[in-house]
Amino acid sequence: MDTLQSLNFETVELDDQKNALVIIDQTLLPNKVVYLSLKTMAEIWQAIYDLQVRGAPAIGIAAAYGLYLGIKQSSATDFDAFFAEFSKVKKYLASSRPTAVNLFWALDRMETCLMKNASASVEKIKTALLQEAHDIKAEDIHTCRAIGEYGLSLLKPGMGLLTHCNAGQLATVKYGTATAPMYLGQEQGYNFKVFVDETRPLLQGARLTAYELNRAGIDATLICDNMAATVMSNGWVNAVFVGCDRVAANGDTANKIGTSGVAILAHYYGIPFYVCAPTSTIDMNCQTGRDIHIEQRPAEEITEKWYAQRMAPQGIKVFNPAFDVTENANITAIITEYGIAQPPFTTSLKDIFNKKLSGKKI
Amino acid sequence: MDTLQSLNFETVELDDQKNALVIIDQTLLPNKVVYLSLKTMAEIWQAIYDLQVRGAPAIGIAAAYGLYLGIKQSSATDFDAFFAEFSKVKKYLASSRPTAVNLFWALDRMETCLMKNASASVEKIKTALLQEAHDIKAEDIHTCRAIGEYGLSLLKPGMGLLTHCNAGQLATVKYGTATAPMYLGQEQGYNFKVFVDETRPLLQGARLTAYELNRAGIDATLICDNMAATVMSNGWVNAVFVGCDRVAANGDTANKIGTSGVAILAHYYGIPFYVCAPTSTIDMNCQTGRDIHIEQRPAEEITEKWYAQRMAPQGIKVFNPAFDVTENANITAIITEYGIAQPPFTTSLKDIFNKKLSGKKI
Repeated sequence: MDTLQSLNFETVELDDQKNALVIIDQTLLPNKVVYLSLKTMAEIWQAIYDLQVRGAPAIGIAAAYGLYLGIKQSSATDFDAFFAEFSKVKKYLASSRPTAVNLFWALDRMETCLMKNASASVEKIKTALLQEAHDIKAEDIHTCRAIGEYGLSLLKPGMGLLTHCNAGQLATVKYGTATAPMYLGQEQGYNFKVFVDETRPLLQGARLTAYELNRAGIDATLICDNMAATVMSNGWVNAVFVGCDRVAANGDTANKIGTSGVAILAHYYGIPFYVCAPTSTIDMNCQTGRDIHIEQRPAEEITEKWYAQRMAPQGIKVFNPAFDVTENANITAIITEYGIAQPPFTTSLKDIFNKKLSGKKI
Repeated sequence: MDTLQSLNFETVELDDQKNALVIIDQTLLPNKVVYLSLKTMAEIWQAIYDLQVRGAPAIGIAAAYGLYLGIKQSSATDFDAFFAEFSKVKKYLASSRPTAVNLFWALDRMETCLMKNASASVEKIKTALLQEAHDIKAEDIHTCRAIGEYGLSLLKPGMGLLTHCNAGQLATVKYGTATAPMYLGQEQGYNFKVFVDETRPLLQGARLTAYELNRAGIDATLICDNMAATVMSNGWVNAVFVGCDRVAANGDTANKIGTSGVAILAHYYGIPFYVCAPTSTIDMNCQTGRDIHIEQRPAEEITEKWYAQRMAPQGIKVFNPAFDVTENANITAIITEYGIAQPPFTTSLKDIFNKKLSGKKI
């Protein structure tokens, strides 16, 4: 496994000449910037398992390229032998993070591509699979960029923004979702001032968002989650941008724990609160936020993780939900790659999906 | 310096027979419960300086007892010689925490007692000073208990409560302020369920409040600050109790960073938000919260403190206010030792002070 350092990066890249998947090791951020050049399936599996690559889109793209690399040097000459090899690699990579929906989605999409090309030669199938992985990546970049452009259309130069958790480039390939308007604004000289919630207990804001915005030269200021109200009351925030894990048909949004509180504060201070949601995260079969199951995580994440020693008394009860649900009433708009959905979301999200189903270009 | 361990404690106690001030070392909580038996002025000075004893009332009482211990064994026989020794010790202890107003207040009160007894024998002055220190402590306990009783009158058995930071027994001698209704309720079988905000960045909730409530057998659950909205939206919180650093004449309240956000969330969810304020913290000369200066603290408290390694990128900007101001509109009532002030606070706080100035018993 090669280790290299660089400052100019995409989160996941294929180095086709060296038969390697190149990722930034997110477990070492922000203290060390280490690129991993993953060459074997075991290395790729381990990197996904160990969260060296994380974020639904980034995982999906890593898996798609991983699957391509896994069969690229296959010596099979007929479809059946090739398919057997493909299936073995696919199953192996799928086992790296059994709860990551996007991982299966990307691997299944690669299989669909394989089946479409079943009558072609193995060499042609390999080329088609490479193209499919490239397409998955390109579509993600395109989606993020479209969200960024729609988001940026709501903003003016010099504005103060606030974000929670990491819905950034590190969770995708480029731009991120909540960060996309910030990066596009940076390209266009908007000079945003961004406040970054550290996002307890896993500190995705402090470790990842602060890192990637700072690295991009964006004026970023780290705060504890409980300082958002002060920053807002000082008049320093003109808009809040967050990502999402799942959006219900009525606009209720599940996202990292703490998001719903930020939305209530923004509502109180009259600050627009925007959810950046690729349509892949909008679940029209889920009626309201009440239907979204919230994962509970281990107490030790709050009492011990990251610390030099335990910071809470032995035996104390702990409540540690990974996500919360932001009520649609506190969301100003939901920004998708097909446009901006305004309240009432039950109607506007349907319109977004009709646009998507009509095959309209983003 | 003796070290002893025990489970039955007041935060600050005089051991007059052993000529020692006994405190619980708050810097070692919650991992170790260590009592320090401080015998020399240097030990007492260091304990205040090192925050082994913290919280305005607790510091004041420690200083008053410390001053007594410092002159107890004086061999002076005339007032002038005794006063010279007293002044030297007083000046030395006052230098331990130059920003702690309550430290000077307690030391000055001891000096006033000394001057009142100027014509008495040195032995009688020593007895009067001991009594004065005991009085300062007894008044603090009485104040906290009165706040607890007024607070408890607002509650019903089985209720869910939430608190932020540590306005607990550890900051006073007994009962605390925000925790006083919880302790009195515990004595009377109220079975409250208390949610404790961990209170970033200094973790006073996780380290101190969780410790002392847990130790008292109160049903306490630790949460990250950004989980308060979820706990409230689940219907688990019937009232919020917080302490305060300073209350303005219009009821605006400065307290630990994060308090104002909790108040906005409570307001949103229709949950009563109570500030527990000894009248000593109410500043009738301060018109509104806008007149309260907010201390900025070092960035490292957010990026490095407590951690095994730095958790934010080098060079990131950090905003770290120690306190925030809760608007009076989000405060349901201010609970003092002279009664409960309801909105409009400009009137009700005046009434509280008239009651106090009339010399009425608490």
